[in-house]
Amino acid sequence: MNTPVRIIIHGASGRMGQALLRLAGERPEIQVVAAVSRKVAARVVDGVPQFASSELGGVPEFDAAIDFSLPEAFDAVLATCRSRRAALVSGTTGLSASQQEELHAAATEIPVLWSANFSLGVAVLSDLVERAAAALSGWDCDIVESHHVHKKDAPSGTALALGASAERGGAAPRYASLRAGDIVGEHLVQFASLGERIELVHRATNRDIFARGALHAASRLAGRAPGEYRLRDLLG
Amino acid sequence: MNTPVRIIIHGASGRMGQALLRLAGERPEIQVVAAVSRKVAARVVDGVPQFASSELGGVPEFDAAIDFSLPEAFDAVLATCRSRRAALVSGTTGLSASQQEELHAAATEIPVLWSANFSLGVAVLSDLVERAAAALSGWDCDIVESHHVHKKDAPSGTALALGASAERGGAAPRYASLRAGDIVGEHLVQFASLGERIELVHRATNRDIFARGALHAASRLAGRAPGEYRLRDLLG
Amino acid sequence: MNTPVRIIIHGASGRMGQALLRLAGERPEIQVVAAVSRKVAARVVDGVPQFASSELGGVPEFDAAIDFSLPEAFDAVLATCRSRRAALVSGTTGLSASQQEELHAAATEIPVLWSANFSLGVAVLSDLVERAAAALSGWDCDIVESHHVHKKDAPSGTALALGASAERGGAAPRYASLRAGDIVGEHLVQFASLGERIELVHRATNRDIFARGALHAASRLAGRAPGEYRLRDLLG
Amino acid sequence: MNTPVRIIIHGASGRMGQALLRLAGERPEIQVVAAVSRKVAARVVDGVPQFASSELGGVPEFDAAIDFSLPEAFDAVLATCRSRRAALVSGTTGLSASQQEELHAAATEIPVLWSANFSLGVAVLSDLVERAAAALSGWDCDIVESHHVHKKDAPSGTALALGASAERGGAAPRYASLRAGDIVGEHLVQFASLGERIELVHRATNRDIFARGALHAASRLAGRAPGEYRLRDLLG
Repeated sequence: MNTPVRIIIHGASGRMGQALLRLAGERPEIQVVAAVSRKVAARVVDGVPQFASSELGGVPEFDAAIDFSLPEAFDAVLATCRSRRAALVSGTTGLSASQQEELHAAATEIPVLWSANFSLGVAVLSDLVERAAAALSGWDCDIVESHHVHKKDAPSGTALALGASAERGGAAPRYASLRAGDIVGEHLVQFASLGERIELVHRATNRDIFARGALHAASRLAGRAPGEYRLRDLLG
Repeated sequence: MNTPVRIIIHGASGRMGQALLRLAGERPEIQVVAAVSRKVAARVVDGVPQFASSELGGVPEFDAAIDFSLPEAFDAVLATCRSRRAALVSGTTGLSASQQEELHAAATEIPVLWSANFSLGVAVLSDLVERAAAALSGWDCDIVESHHVHKKDAPSGTALALGASAERGGAAPRYASLRAGDIVGEHLVQFASLGERIELVHRATNRDIFARGALHAASRLAGRAPGEYRLRDLLG
Repeated sequence: MNTPVRIIIHGASGRMGQALLRLAGERPEIQVVAAVSRKVAARVVDGVPQFASSELGGVPEFDAAIDFSLPEAFDAVLATCRSRRAALVSGTTGLSASQQEELHAAATEIPVLWSANFSLGVAVLSDLVERAAAALSGWDCDIVESHHVHKKDAPSGTALALGASAERGGAAPRYASLRAGDIVGEHLVQFASLGERIELVHRATNRDIFARGALHAASRLAGRAPGEYRLRDLLG
Repeated sequence: MNTPVRIIIHGASGRMGQALLRLAGERPEIQVVAAVSRKVAARVVDGVPQFASSELGGVPEFDAAIDFSLPEAFDAVLATCRSRRAALVSGTTGLSASQQEELHAAATEIPVLWSANFSLGVAVLSDLVERAAAALSGWDCDIVESHHVHKKDAPSGTALALGASAERGGAAPRYASLRAGDIVGEHLVQFASLGERIELVHRATNRDIFARGALHAASRLAGRAPGEYRLRDLLG
């Protein structure tokens, strides 16, 4: 057994943070050495040392940070990763243009990965869609996405990202959106020609997949050369 | 407009031969310069010169041969392609080991492509399956194929070929087969993990796709460097 | 073996008429005693006596007429069925309000069936959709239909008819339409709630199903009591 | 607002019992007046009075009991329902032949419902399958079920129950089973003919549907005439 990858969870009190802490326990290849959140009620919870945001500089040595926090907390975790030469995996949304530039600049020193969707399956599907679109020039391309009735935006961000993959492959997808029940998320990318058809489908049934994907990414990103990575670069 | 690719159809009286002749007419990039079959009733049919097998040596100049004939007719078309420096696309089944070796040897002189399935969609799916399997290590892999009730073998040859692609990617697929109605052919390759799933599906609704794929292959193979090609090398 | 049902095909030269004649030959329970079309080239074709529209009154005795003609030819076939006390199966579109009233009136004397879609599968699906909608009150209902790229109207008439079935059951469906490749016709009616979902799908892969459905209807309608029938009343 | 239906949960400490208690809180039409389990730690938990099995006779007045317990506890809850003239909804498995007979006998005095699967969607699907099979005589019928990799039996009990529905309608289904990931449960019943196909699918993504279905059944069964009911009788 190799030494486990040492990880800190930044934004530990949020929904993703809690899922990350819960699911990290299932993975022997990962050791959570610090959970960082705005306020701390106890020094140790379930064996994990707790740190307030203001104490971020004092966390023990780590190999990668997983950050699902807020834009106002992002600069601190990025700076800490740079000073510690540790990898950064972030899913924090709403970053400003200058923050995105800082992330880009940091990639000359440390490995970084930012993504809006940490499902491994979606990352793979995105790759397959681009490849299929490139091979199937002239085929009709349709994207159908289904989500729960509380989702307001349509098409979903993931559908648009899959559409961008299709466009990189040369296709011009059309979109349809369904809002029904409590569907976690389903995406169909269809390529149709005369007499035959390819359907590429991703079905998510549990939100834990996003936390699992982020843990997977952190364990694979730690120790890599500096640079900007995509989730699909860390598969397999 | 470029000069059309000159093609001969070898095995022109069979079901595939007839479909090839019918569908070649839809494609301005292809000119059928000879239809070769065992017996010939007229010198010209629908504008296409007809040749008996015994007259194969006398066909006009051509860039590629499409062969859907029988093992006993195969040697002659291979020899003709070699002597003419033309490409060979063949879907003839039941070739002996020594015939396969001859085909392999010919590939040092001319471009050749042999395939059991000329659906472009299946060729793409096969590529996607290998790629998905490589990226999704540890996911469960299932292949479900559906065909008409008259199909005797199960799993289908295409399902097994998709399974081989999955295995090259590191997966260990299981198979299920349905025989129902007059389904031309459907193949589902599913990868499942915790909370998410990818489904890769090909649906064939018309047998013309096989002739279309062979015509596509011939137009793309003509003029290439000698070698053994796969359908998927000629896509996009 | 029972005596076959004697049928006349009205509108025999159209696409549906030709399919009806071709497929009637597969069914021992049906005997086509007359093919009626505007012009007649021969007195008998493939064993079937041919009659011009002007000769409709002179066709031999029959049990049911299948009519896929034009509004201007409809009145004659309806009158003939009434005078012969024969059943009428019609898929002629564009009937005027007064023609529809005549059809309604004729139903007091003979069994009649008019339908826009003669697929048996769609007839069954329509029944299932109404039943499901009635049982699943409060579930979200979505209808997704896919057709070839040449289809202009959306949602399809069949999707709207399925939607009407859902509404009779108490649901309020939403619609999405895909236009891709040469898809003959696919309809999905989905009912979704929390944690579970029902999908009811019909896939048509061959236009012959419409002719088969009309032949089935004619053989079942012949000899019934006068009245207006729906395709679904004649199943099973 | 009507008076809520008063319910007791028998087998309250099991997985289903806990789900029933949690989900009953979402339904204003239901009031849980007692939770009965082998051992009791407190007299009231989350506002619900707790009773040990030995105290079953002392529970407050109620309209329906929901029982997910063990065969050895079943006789007591049945007797209590009879003496209180209350409805009984039970999903307890492993009942002996004489217990099943007792249940049957009790149905002359109180309304009872026993089911192996309390998903409303499956109940509806089962009804649709029987109806479709009756209408589509001669069509090929296939049932494909998918479940998580820990499920040992195949085909699933639900698949067999759907198959029994198909058989009541006159079809002779074949079965295929997939075991993959953590799929909660999916069932496809397909009817195929020449050129068309119907697919009836149920997808479960959350085990809460079984508790929801039992709560629904209890609220609908309370106050009915004595008799044996099926879940599908209580829909709509």
